[in-house]
Amino acid sequence: MSDERVRGGIDLGGTKIEAIVIDSDHEVLGQSRRPTPQDNGADGVAAAMANAMSEAAEAAGVKTNALTGVGVGSPGQVASDSGVVSNAKNLPDWNGSFPLGARLADALGTRVKIGNDVSVAVAGEYELGAGRNHDSVLGVFWGTGVGGGLILGGRQWHGRGSAGEIGHMVVVRNGERCPCGNKGCMEAYAGRAAMEKEARKRVKAGEKTKLFKIMEEHDRPRLTSGIWERALDQDDKMAQELIERAIKALGAGIASAVNLLDPEVVILGGGLGVRFGERLGPEIRKRMERNLFDHNHPPKFTVAELGDLGGAIGASLLVE
Amino acid sequence: MSDERVRGGIDLGGTKIEAIVIDSDHEVLGQSRRPTPQDNGADGVAAAMANAMSEAAEAAGVKTNALTGVGVGSPGQVASDSGVVSNAKNLPDWNGSFPLGARLADALGTRVKIGNDVSVAVAGEYELGAGRNHDSVLGVFWGTGVGGGLILGGRQWHGRGSAGEIGHMVVVRNGERCPCGNKGCMEAYAGRAAMEKEARKRVKAGEKTKLFKIMEEHDRPRLTSGIWERALDQDDKMAQELIERAIKALGAGIASAVNLLDPEVVILGGGLGVRFGERLGPEIRKRMERNLFDHNHPPKFTVAELGDLGGAIGASLLVE
Repeated sequence: MSDERVRGGIDLGGTKIEAIVIDSDHEVLGQSRRPTPQDNGADGVAAAMANAMSEAAEAAGVKTNALTGVGVGSPGQVASDSGVVSNAKNLPDWNGSFPLGARLADALGTRVKIGNDVSVAVAGEYELGAGRNHDSVLGVFWGTGVGGGLILGGRQWHGRGSAGEIGHMVVVRNGERCPCGNKGCMEAYAGRAAMEKEARKRVKAGEKTKLFKIMEEHDRPRLTSGIWERALDQDDKMAQELIERAIKALGAGIASAVNLLDPEVVILGGGLGVRFGERLGPEIRKRMERNLFDHNHPPKFTVAELGDLGGAIGASLLVE
Repeated sequence: MSDERVRGGIDLGGTKIEAIVIDSDHEVLGQSRRPTPQDNGADGVAAAMANAMSEAAEAAGVKTNALTGVGVGSPGQVASDSGVVSNAKNLPDWNGSFPLGARLADALGTRVKIGNDVSVAVAGEYELGAGRNHDSVLGVFWGTGVGGGLILGGRQWHGRGSAGEIGHMVVVRNGERCPCGNKGCMEAYAGRAAMEKEARKRVKAGEKTKLFKIMEEHDRPRLTSGIWERALDQDDKMAQELIERAIKALGAGIASAVNLLDPEVVILGGGLGVRFGERLGPEIRKRMERNLFDHNHPPKFTVAELGDLGGAIGASLLVE
């Protein structure tokens, strides 16, 4: 396995780490997934990422130091030159800065390039997925948080470095407290973390749900997208209500972004977006269309094509 | 007066028509303003625009047919090639299409170019006003409606033709009905038309206000920005409440747009924006900053520099 163009990609999420090895035809040769460790802070996360990457390389029959490089999509503020990641609020104990790039490069014996998780995912969809043949793309990544990525006129738009925070568009002025600290953000209703917090609050107030029972049965520390899906399958009322609440917020927030930017296509991705795209996408689209200013020209609305591996595939493009 | 580079600009608003004649150094040589006629539909508006332009030309000592051209900023959907304006919802009886460009060219004896009112205003600020030396600009035009204009990477961003509808970003999901028909838009709280409608509703419900008395004293058919200002000066409680409601909606909506786009500068313009910029701008800015995702890097927030004539000056750049 001496193909010099085999590369790695890691998608670092709030609940899971996804690592792949991929060739120059964008075919995935090996992969590995594990939960994001919640205990040992940034160090623990970096170690788990290196292990996942090694496992994916092993599955592909290649050493990590033979990879042309490893691209990483990370939450938080990413300094892509230095590989330092700061303020990754959806990761455990990651409020400061951490030299993730250097740490991984040491562990893996190859160069590592880090990008924003949502930026690399939207780049992946734009180059290889649902954004192909489009000039302007609004990516909506519905997972632990709700991230956004913008392609405008064929180029990623980053603003002064922090553009794309669609999850923090205000959909209910003075509404629910968001994990970011502000009030009424779309993510305060639709982010997986905020949904779980609301579910726990309701349980504490005496409401019934199967959500946490399913969570324990499946030995999960959190309400993952799979848990939400099982609860919906079992007609759990609280799960239905909270998902509907999320859908309404997503519809309003996406419509707001479309009214401002008028893109050709909206791509729904992320852990929840990919899992629920087929089932709930039509309802999100309907809610979005209701709030469009120009009802006659809705954008195309579609689910991310690269699926679960989209983040890791997009990340790998950083070292292509 | 045979300077070939003297040109005209018209700003067509929901309450007033502003016409100027301007030279190649962007010095205004003549101007004329009149209320937008509410009675005779698009025909009446076009006639009033031609009269205003003739008056501005007379003040500048030039015939309209000696102008290099006349640029017009218009609400509604503008087909800039044909000069046809459609669905100008904030203008009287203008739901269909009207050949405004051809009509004005006939009346004035010179070429006429029409652009979207907000686009030309933001272009004016970008080239000659508060947006100079900036690469990305979010223009917020607070008037009869609330319009938005985007400069991203040094270029206007129009999306598929309808970008910039910041007034129709949802700030209160399922909230007040907006003039556009949707619910909870920023404009439903902050647009001058919506504010007047709410004031009339409250009066009907028995609440007291000096707003309509001041309106009658000044012989105005509507609550213009000047009427609102006088009511604030007289500590009118309803005026204070409705202005505060507008400010809150503006703060939330502008923050949403900034979170999505991360521009260098936010420019507040429009009839209400220019009149109240100094008085209320700091409060709008404070409300905006409260809802920013990245509290450490707020954009510059400033009032349009070209003032009352900004729309007309920006429009004149269409025929520069």
